[in-house]
Amino acid sequence: MDTLRLGVAGLGRAFSLMLPTFLADARVRLVGACDPRATARAQFEADFDAPAFDDIEALARMPEIDAIYIASPHQFHAAHTRIAARHGKHVLVEKPMALSLEECDAMIDACRAANVHLIVGHCHSFDTPYLRTRELIASGEYGDVKMIQALNYTDYLFRPRRPEELKTEEGGGAVFSQAAHQVDIVRLLAGGRATRIRAAVGNWDAARPTEGAYTATLWFDNGAFATLAYNGYAHFDSDEWTGWIGEMGQTRNADDYGSARRKLSRVESKEEEARLKAAGTYGGEAYTAPSRGQSEPRAYQHFGPLIVSCERGDLRPLPDAILVYGDERRARIELDAPHVPRAEVIDELSAAVHGGIAPLHDGVWARGTLEICIAMLHSSAQQRDVLIGGEHSKHSKHSNNRDH
Amino acid sequence: MDTLRLGVAGLGRAFSLMLPTFLADARVRLVGACDPRATARAQFEADFDAPAFDDIEALARMPEIDAIYIASPHQFHAAHTRIAARHGKHVLVEKPMALSLEECDAMIDACRAANVHLIVGHCHSFDTPYLRTRELIASGEYGDVKMIQALNYTDYLFRPRRPEELKTEEGGGAVFSQAAHQVDIVRLLAGGRATRIRAAVGNWDAARPTEGAYTATLWFDNGAFATLAYNGYAHFDSDEWTGWIGEMGQTRNADDYGSARRKLSRVESKEEEARLKAAGTYGGEAYTAPSRGQSEPRAYQHFGPLIVSCERGDLRPLPDAILVYGDERRARIELDAPHVPRAEVIDELSAAVHGGIAPLHDGVWARGTLEICIAMLHSSAQQRDVLIGGEHSKHSKHSNNRDH
Ligand SMILES: NC(=O)c1ccc[n+]([C@@H]2O[C@H](COP(=O)([O-])OP(=O)(O)OC[C@H]3O[C@@H](n4cnc5c(N)ncnc54)[C@H](O)[C@@H]3O)[C@@H](O)[C@H]2O)c1
Ligand SMILES: NC(=O)c1ccc[n+]([C@@H]2O[C@H](COP(=O)([O-])OP(=O)(O)OC[C@H]3O[C@@H](n4cnc5c(N)ncnc54)[C@H](O)[C@@H]3O)[C@@H](O)[C@H]2O)c1
Repeated sequence: MDTLRLGVAGLGRAFSLMLPTFLADARVRLVGACDPRATARAQFEADFDAPAFDDIEALARMPEIDAIYIASPHQFHAAHTRIAARHGKHVLVEKPMALSLEECDAMIDACRAANVHLIVGHCHSFDTPYLRTRELIASGEYGDVKMIQALNYTDYLFRPRRPEELKTEEGGGAVFSQAAHQVDIVRLLAGGRATRIRAAVGNWDAARPTEGAYTATLWFDNGAFATLAYNGYAHFDSDEWTGWIGEMGQTRNADDYGSARRKLSRVESKEEEARLKAAGTYGGEAYTAPSRGQSEPRAYQHFGPLIVSCERGDLRPLPDAILVYGDERRARIELDAPHVPRAEVIDELSAAVHGGIAPLHDGVWARGTLEICIAMLHSSAQQRDVLIGGEHSKHSKHSNNRDH
Repeated sequence: MDTLRLGVAGLGRAFSLMLPTFLADARVRLVGACDPRATARAQFEADFDAPAFDDIEALARMPEIDAIYIASPHQFHAAHTRIAARHGKHVLVEKPMALSLEECDAMIDACRAANVHLIVGHCHSFDTPYLRTRELIASGEYGDVKMIQALNYTDYLFRPRRPEELKTEEGGGAVFSQAAHQVDIVRLLAGGRATRIRAAVGNWDAARPTEGAYTATLWFDNGAFATLAYNGYAHFDSDEWTGWIGEMGQTRNADDYGSARRKLSRVESKEEEARLKAAGTYGGEAYTAPSRGQSEPRAYQHFGPLIVSCERGDLRPLPDAILVYGDERRARIELDAPHVPRAEVIDELSAAVHGGIAPLHDGVWARGTLEICIAMLHSSAQQRDVLIGGEHSKHSKHSNNRDH
């Protein structure tokens, strides 16, 4: 088994969510990190007996690193990817890939020039239930995909945030952070190329003035259309419709109602909120490390209820099964519980780095998702359809469409 | 208690669905009917000891009739309403109100000129859970409505049909018949005036070439937006998300899977299909009459899962309760089981006819719903937003908007 020697850029919440994977997946070794937070660096050095720098350049120079997992805030993804590539490191960069298509193009170019792989993730489109649903669709048994309904109701907007996470122009809000998952999943399942989108976004909380909700219709060149709805101001939690299995595959406590709003109501300033977020992540005073045993998830991760309607059947990926509703009968395809959470990300990274297998979630793919997310914002502001694959499509495979 | 002496025009499926109401509601007396089907007339005369004609003119002339329930096929709604009004009868006409806004205008004018009430229903927006949710919203406790998600997955397109029910240009398909319910409910809950719509319709079965599915975003002048999704080709049945309580408030048998498709697959011609539909309705050889005792429904009727998101709470009307998700706590407002199904329709009709109380579901209201349904078809065909309240708005209260 080939080892992946990983460097980590950004030891915050995203890293803490990947950490159970890195700890449990025997293929991964964490060999270095960087973060401006001293407490996070100290924790990393103690936990992994490996160096942690305050700057990505020093990390990227480490010869023993195969790939860098870039989990810094959105606005650094492009620069950090270019630095990693320049030092010949493969890149696993968190979603959203970047904040603009120009940044995406530069990232793709830099990785191609350096001959390194560029994978964008973790993203929930890596989750096994969606990948298996995609295989069922590809089998042809259910005919063409016609309609997809995806929805997710969460307390996204009330979780503790850094100030820029609440400013759309700096990449804040549900479209950049949450549509990045939902659009990716829907594209993966629809199969065709997205051609146009019409969206409405909700920006309803004066104290947190960014998008917390959206609804969108997305059309594909194979005739399918999809409805995406997300409400991050929600009081109803759509995990109620996935058997109280949460986004991370964990068992939710249905009685822990309203806790995000309650905690936030005690916070008095933006600075305090940012401190609260940092305190809860790696190296922070309120951080609790995952133990190897305890972290075994109950089920796969997910991003809310979703129905794919095909000509001869509807498919419903769930965290622990896929429900198949055919013309004549229903079936429940049980999924074996995952041994390692998000192992799918390591599978794809390892296959690329060691097997030379082109990744599904590569830069061109993820750029397509960002293009759709940005188009959602435009569609809502301009109150019209926005065509996908338009003007700025240096790296889009089909650039013969024009926005009107 | 004042009696409503009703005449019925059209003794088909819609009538058979209202019959349990008419039988159980002590305010109603059926005093006459008309239908071209002789078997239906014979059954009516035997059941109610009252005359049944082959033509609505004769029915409308009966002096003892207060109001006519028009449950003939869509294409007759306008003409039958005018005839009823001309004879001074109040009108309860089935949804959709008619096939064009011009027809709606003529119906409204005719009823105004005759000084009779015009109510459009039954429609699921009469269902108590929606009306109670509307009251909760009106209380102001949860703040403004921001976002509504409505969805419904059914076997609509595979139920036995008359030929015109499968031709859009004759009023067939899910937009005229099913959006008529969903749009009406969403308008009622959103509160504001609908200003624009963007829709995609699905027409996927060459053997039944009309719309069986749609998705739409509907915007309101109070800033709310709504997502409506309907799939009448579905294999997944969204009653799974309403505790297996069906559209009629009945307990569904979850194991009776795929029966509509199975039955339809044995039908060999359009004529046979139309006969099959007629056989199952009033007076047909496969018709089973509701018995007074047996017909008591388990719960209220409904039109699929729906979430209303307000500033300070989400509301979920269910067939037997309203789930209220507030900022701090959740509550389940239990609804006493209905004694008479669809009594809400008789409440509104009776209040209008005997109390002079202007009905909620009047002609102008229902015209607004039809306008949106027609706009859905245009939006999908023309691939653009369609403005509501546009050119043809003789009876729309706000006609200062222009479609572009
Ligand atoms: N896939 C997922 O489930 C998921 C979940 C959360 C966040 N994310 C993504 O991860 C990224 C980070 O978000 P987060 O919620 O972890 O934020 P965070 O604030 O919790 O963590 C960011 C970390 O990066 C550090 N950092 C800041 N500037 C840096 C720099 N120049 N170089 C290196 N490190 C730097 C911060 O000190 C912090 O420790 C975002 O792009 C976000 O979209 C993904
Ligand atoms: N609200 C609901 O739940 C509901 C349910 C079903 C139908 N509907 C509506 O009811 C209407 C009828 O649909 P249906 O499914 O009952 O159809 P149907 O074919 O079952 O019944 C129509 C009846 O009208 C009769 N008829 C035909 N021409 C007539 C005429 N000129 N005068 C009088 N009667 C005539 C037919 O013989 C038949 O008995 C439609 O507008 C439909 O949208 C409403």
